[in-house]
Amino acid sequence: MNQNHDRRYYLSDIPVEQALAKLLQVVDNKGIHEVEVVPLRDAVGRVTARPIWAKISSPHYDAAAMDGVAVLSSQTTGATETKPISLVHGTDFEWVDTGDPMPSQFDAVVMIEVIVRIDDHTIELRSPVAPYQDVRPLGEDMAATELVLPPNHLIRPIDLGASAAAGITNIPVLPRPKAILIPTGNELVKGPEELVPGDIIEFNSLMVSGMIKEWGGNATVCEPVPDDYELIKDTIRKAIDVHDIIIIIAGSSAGSEDYTANIVEDLGELVVHGIAIRPGHPLILGTISKKIIIGLPGYPVSCVLTSELFIKPLIEAFQGIVTEERHTLNATLTRKLLSPIGDDEYVRVMLGQVGEKLVATPLQRGAGVITSLTRADGITVIPRFSDGLDAGSTIKVDLLRPARAIKNSIIAVGSHDMTLDLMASRIKINHPSRTLSSSNIGSVGGLLALSREEAHIAGSHLLDPETGLYNISYIYKYIKDKRVVVINLVHRVQGLMIPKGNPKTILSLRDITREDVSFVNRQRGSGTRVLLDYKLSEMGLNTRNITGYNREEYTHLSVAATVAGGGADCGLGILPAAKALGLDFVPISTEQYDLIMPEHFYEAGILQPVVDIINDPEFKNEIERLGGYDVSNMGDIIATLP
Amino acid sequence: MNQNHDRRYYLSDIPVEQALAKLLQVVDNKGIHEVEVVPLRDAVGRVTARPIWAKISSPHYDAAAMDGVAVLSSQTTGATETKPISLVHGTDFEWVDTGDPMPSQFDAVVMIEVIVRIDDHTIELRSPVAPYQDVRPLGEDMAATELVLPPNHLIRPIDLGASAAAGITNIPVLPRPKAILIPTGNELVKGPEELVPGDIIEFNSLMVSGMIKEWGGNATVCEPVPDDYELIKDTIRKAIDVHDIIIIIAGSSAGSEDYTANIVEDLGELVVHGIAIRPGHPLILGTISKKIIIGLPGYPVSCVLTSELFIKPLIEAFQGIVTEERHTLNATLTRKLLSPIGDDEYVRVMLGQVGEKLVATPLQRGAGVITSLTRADGITVIPRFSDGLDAGSTIKVDLLRPARAIKNSIIAVGSHDMTLDLMASRIKINHPSRTLSSSNIGSVGGLLALSREEAHIAGSHLLDPETGLYNISYIYKYIKDKRVVVINLVHRVQGLMIPKGNPKTILSLRDITREDVSFVNRQRGSGTRVLLDYKLSEMGLNTRNITGYNREEYTHLSVAATVAGGGADCGLGILPAAKALGLDFVPISTEQYDLIMPEHFYEAGILQPVVDIINDPEFKNEIERLGGYDVSNMGDIIATLP
Repeated sequence: MNQNHDRRYYLSDIPVEQALAKLLQVVDNKGIHEVEVVPLRDAVGRVTARPIWAKISSPHYDAAAMDGVAVLSSQTTGATETKPISLVHGTDFEWVDTGDPMPSQFDAVVMIEVIVRIDDHTIELRSPVAPYQDVRPLGEDMAATELVLPPNHLIRPIDLGASAAAGITNIPVLPRPKAILIPTGNELVKGPEELVPGDIIEFNSLMVSGMIKEWGGNATVCEPVPDDYELIKDTIRKAIDVHDIIIIIAGSSAGSEDYTANIVEDLGELVVHGIAIRPGHPLILGTISKKIIIGLPGYPVSCVLTSELFIKPLIEAFQGIVTEERHTLNATLTRKLLSPIGDDEYVRVMLGQVGEKLVATPLQRGAGVITSLTRADGITVIPRFSDGLDAGSTIKVDLLRPARAIKNSIIAVGSHDMTLDLMASRIKINHPSRTLSSSNIGSVGGLLALSREEAHIAGSHLLDPETGLYNISYIYKYIKDKRVVVINLVHRVQGLMIPKGNPKTILSLRDITREDVSFVNRQRGSGTRVLLDYKLSEMGLNTRNITGYNREEYTHLSVAATVAGGGADCGLGILPAAKALGLDFVPISTEQYDLIMPEHFYEAGILQPVVDIINDPEFKNEIERLGGYDVSNMGDIIATLP
Repeated sequence: MNQNHDRRYYLSDIPVEQALAKLLQVVDNKGIHEVEVVPLRDAVGRVTARPIWAKISSPHYDAAAMDGVAVLSSQTTGATETKPISLVHGTDFEWVDTGDPMPSQFDAVVMIEVIVRIDDHTIELRSPVAPYQDVRPLGEDMAATELVLPPNHLIRPIDLGASAAAGITNIPVLPRPKAILIPTGNELVKGPEELVPGDIIEFNSLMVSGMIKEWGGNATVCEPVPDDYELIKDTIRKAIDVHDIIIIIAGSSAGSEDYTANIVEDLGELVVHGIAIRPGHPLILGTISKKIIIGLPGYPVSCVLTSELFIKPLIEAFQGIVTEERHTLNATLTRKLLSPIGDDEYVRVMLGQVGEKLVATPLQRGAGVITSLTRADGITVIPRFSDGLDAGSTIKVDLLRPARAIKNSIIAVGSHDMTLDLMASRIKINHPSRTLSSSNIGSVGGLLALSREEAHIAGSHLLDPETGLYNISYIYKYIKDKRVVVINLVHRVQGLMIPKGNPKTILSLRDITREDVSFVNRQRGSGTRVLLDYKLSEMGLNTRNITGYNREEYTHLSVAATVAGGGADCGLGILPAAKALGLDFVPISTEQYDLIMPEHFYEAGILQPVVDIINDPEFKNEIERLGGYDVSNMGDIIATLP
């Protein structure tokens, strides 16, 4: 904490293409004269430093291309079915196997299948053969001195074959670009042991070094350096002698403890500070003694995206290669997305083939939410001249998972339940090519998504206070023009999750209206929220008296985590979530959690992996072991509506 | 050589999908209970063996999401531009930097940019803030016990980040499937030293092991085993204890020395022998003691294609993963392709964006021509129910090079000259994203390809016997509706290439008609062939008297290689080719070798890299050093026609 005396301001926000062009000007692949010579077997993934010329021809002799006999073609002229020609072993023909050198007196091969054997020494041919038929002539594949591989060529396993055939045993390759990663920040710790609030586990270097290796570079990771101008400067100065690219992680912003830009100006030239993207805005590009220096933002999503935008092309430029871009698919956006003009925004999306449409649902947009990347199927860019996209827009998505896996995804929406995580794991094991992608948007949100054909399944536990039944009346209300099958997954206990030992003696819902008790709620539209409101009104309690009623979390676990972390005294949720975080639990009610599936998906078998699992006794046992669930109706078809 | 007593026959030729299904039945990923635990930094490219659950929440405390001040939101209610609210440091607000834990008495962050500082202790706010504004609540990213990664998940660098954030330090992963490669054949040698005719450098294992590693498996390569039933059987028997997949290279056919099928029947079960593809037909799939055994064909292209069709999905099945397929492009086929009904044929093609069309030119189809794979831009499949494709057909091509590199390729066709190889290398160095792809189809073929808009450049050295001029009259004849620019590349000496010491005393063209002299010719349509015929008729010599007149090779180097290998006594070609293979050379004539470029390409700058190079004095020097070239007119525009 400090008083922000020394804030600096961004030089300018420039577009990605301009920033990249400025950076690439610095790299001159042609200037690399250093060469490493590696044996063929170690050459895959390396890049040729020079043209590779064939040392020998391949094949290096005229070779039989078939199993059969070698003959002189001119001797077979005129052979027909009725007038076969007899040939005698030794003088007129010789047996050859594929790959054998051609005996010098012969010029063609007759394959074994068409030969008529008269006796051990004599064969008959019933058609003539052309010169060089079924002979692989010397140099058919490559003649000595021909170009085998050009320079700046990324070596693949097949290139090893061509090189070996051409008599090459070692290949001159470019050195891998050497990057060093310098994580900075007083708050950084290396692992999860004895974390205190404010500690941040340093994992950006783990991700970026992994990516650099995939792109063909070498990456060294430094110990984290505290936010200290001289220390960071010193670390950079030592790094420039032996590395091509120096990467400072965090401290690239314009805050008071963001020193990178000043250090780069101090030691060399600051080329770019700030680019017009989000997340990822505070990026630094510069040079020191002809080495490249990059300041990456510390938020993990920003860090990954800017690495991919700048470090990847840089490493490719060092090696003079062009690599394949990501696969793309066009998809229909499920929600309106607002985005500020002036910045290219990189939005992570979940994709699913729902009926005719490939639908894209945006994930969380925060730069700190790394799971928005790991759970994403792809990334779409809202360009800087646009202020957003309407629901229903067609967007181009760069894929993070294989297209065929995405097309096989089962899209589950609605209310979250831990059994869905267990189901997702089990589906992956039983059907490796299938995935259950789930997105927690509350029970009502899930029904609406089904109605709009944006998902295959909705998880719902919506109590109708008038009928006392779950889900049915809501399905009539929210799902139009579509028959759905309602299958019970579990009955589960909802209750108040409270810190171990119940320090504030919370024993019923009435206690959450106490002045000294703070609460954390679920979001509007979630079944848990409906249940809470129902129970509160039943008891005549006013939500205004609940401190934290407006504080919304999106899953049972995040409510539990908030309570466990001391952020609230209690929250309503399910027993497994409380147990998972070591909380006590006061049961309030039992509720029914169903899976709703449009009948046309249910009958088409797309959802068979889900149906199989909910009828699998082993899965039932696994859920029961969690506690807080009643699985006696799991798999029962409750209704087919309307 | 042998008498083929013991040939066996194929069990049956089955389609690829059936063969693969039979193989995959054997693999049961669910049966793998062995687990390896690796630290995060070594986990990229590995596959999770179990679901990974979050051990801690991320963030594990409520964190400031901005640099600014932490406040209590309720205290800011009612703040406006005209009625700002004053807050005092320590009691009403606290300075926070991004990532700092929220002081427990505050619930929102106001970013530094909107704060008005009154003095060192006091600030003013001019608008209210909502609860939790710019706060990253505990568990925003992940709550403890949530699913971080499902099982059977291929780990990417970003997954390391999510795992580390969730307090994971080690990951349980599946063991890599262990493959062993057993090359077989008496003819195999390990390197190019002291090759004699019949020796084959063993490089299939180099390619296949490289591919297996790329697919996520481990590959051990055995010393080559001679064609000996007991030796091979013994090697297999020893391999099955410690490996999951045993791969026998070569000997998978039905020849007399092809033992693999019999050995598999002997030791276990032969599941498949022979699949309906070409190249790659003689494939063996079987099991021995629940281990998988694969017999790969020995021809390198067959070996690579069948590995990709069978070993890749097998290794993926062992790990329960699905990987991305190759990028594809649709292209227009330049030539008619005949293909036998009953087999899926895998045709390697060169691609190029020529004007509006992406054109695909088939490369050599022989299973032994490994350069047909390394030089290919992609592979197209002619399905087994088709007897071929017409020129002009649209084909789907699986890409072997990045699409954006392919679209940048300069397509050169026509007559081959070594200077084109040097040019290709230089283009790769000067413009890493550009490629010169050349295909040798003779001078006339090149002009016809230009006329059909299938190439950017044609190399041509066609002498008009009537005018004594090169190329001009041929361009008028073969290129319609298109203006072309004719630029000289080189003048080069054509002559007879003869073995060192000139053992048969060949001194002029007249000598090639001698009975004791054999000749190797170039293909019809090539400039060298036109020159030969012109000179022969000038001298009144009859081609019938030339032994080998009908034996055709497609490049100068392959003619030279044939002479060097003793396959012929002489051939007509250029000096550099003779020098490269250590041959003597009797000059016959000097000829002009031009590059012909359609004017609309020349002017559009697509060909700028080529134009730059032929005007580069360094390139001229490089060519001159080869000998046999006159570069004094290099780069001169000879004509613009018509």
